[in-house]
Amino acid sequence: MAAPVAGPEIERLVQLLARLPGLGPRSARRAALHLIKKREELLGPLSEAMRVAHERIVTCSTCGNIDTSDPCTICRDVRRDRSLLVVVETVSDLWALERAGLLRARYHVLGGVLSPLDGVGPDDLNIAGLVERLRGGEVRETIIAVNATVDGQTTAHYIADLIAPLSVKTTRLAHGVPVGGELDYLDEGTLAAALERRTVF
Amino acid sequence: MAAPVAGPEIERLVQLLARLPGLGPRSARRAALHLIKKREELLGPLSEAMRVAHERIVTCSTCGNIDTSDPCTICRDVRRDRSLLVVVETVSDLWALERAGLLRARYHVLGGVLSPLDGVGPDDLNIAGLVERLRGGEVRETIIAVNATVDGQTTAHYIADLIAPLSVKTTRLAHGVPVGGELDYLDEGTLAAALERRTVF
Repeated sequence: MAAPVAGPEIERLVQLLARLPGLGPRSARRAALHLIKKREELLGPLSEAMRVAHERIVTCSTCGNIDTSDPCTICRDVRRDRSLLVVVETVSDLWALERAGLLRARYHVLGGVLSPLDGVGPDDLNIAGLVERLRGGEVRETIIAVNATVDGQTTAHYIADLIAPLSVKTTRLAHGVPVGGELDYLDEGTLAAALERRTVF
Repeated sequence: MAAPVAGPEIERLVQLLARLPGLGPRSARRAALHLIKKREELLGPLSEAMRVAHERIVTCSTCGNIDTSDPCTICRDVRRDRSLLVVVETVSDLWALERAGLLRARYHVLGGVLSPLDGVGPDDLNIAGLVERLRGGEVRETIIAVNATVDGQTTAHYIADLIAPLSVKTTRLAHGVPVGGELDYLDEGTLAAALERRTVF
């Protein structure tokens, strides 16, 4: 390995950037050079945005979302339907549903899925918090909007069983052909679900 | 568009990350969530590394490299052969050559290539600085290591003509089949160069 090309500051910036998902060593170098080139328009503001995020972002103690306030913006939003609670795996799933703008509900972020092989049990997820919220009596329907993976569905069944005694209506997302999806590329499970739940024109 | 999911701080972080090369809106969201998850190990250090870079990184007034000192680490390195100067387009090309560790030379970063269509002329590049360095008399050989693109080669010829009167030996990189390259994927120009300059076993 050759001696460092530049001072340790640039090396460090490249190494840290390379740890972002989606960036490898080469793209981290490109990103670092881009940042240094766009010093005032990008490097300065991004550095500042990260400092603010580092200092101020907290996890909402109610729902598990991230925000600069606790409770988060969504939990504090009085225009949302407090009787509808959407259970998601991660904050990025919450963001995906919010971007779609289909619901004015509140959320509960589990922080993952049950995965015995990876040693993730119910106590590792924000499930106790969910039960506590449902016991509050305000929620009328819980939509379990976890991913349609094996672990996701296992988790959904576990939660549905757990909250069954709480007399809250529990629903889950429909399976079927994605809009724009081509049958040729879909797995058998999806095709079976789409056929089974076919609807009349 | 739905209302912002979280406070403006996170939105801003995502928007700035999306301006990095190699990251789009979706990967910028993933990167932001990853940063927030790895708050102490990654977000804090990266924020600090960017702050330091923003404050301290300068362009070397001798060679055009970037560093936290001027002259840069390479220009100050007394173990380098001062008689050999390698002309490159960009700092990332300089880094690529340094990573290969094949030379202990000094560099001259042009900052781009001549491109009449994009309005880039000789005065937009660090060419006057190159001539001045060569007039210093220390350099015995100039390797013009620009990219093998049309604009790169035009620039190489322009520079070679310009510095011809300075009685400095001027060389350029060889064309040929890249190591590990498959003939089927190479263009005709590369194949022609590789055939023409074929060597005896």
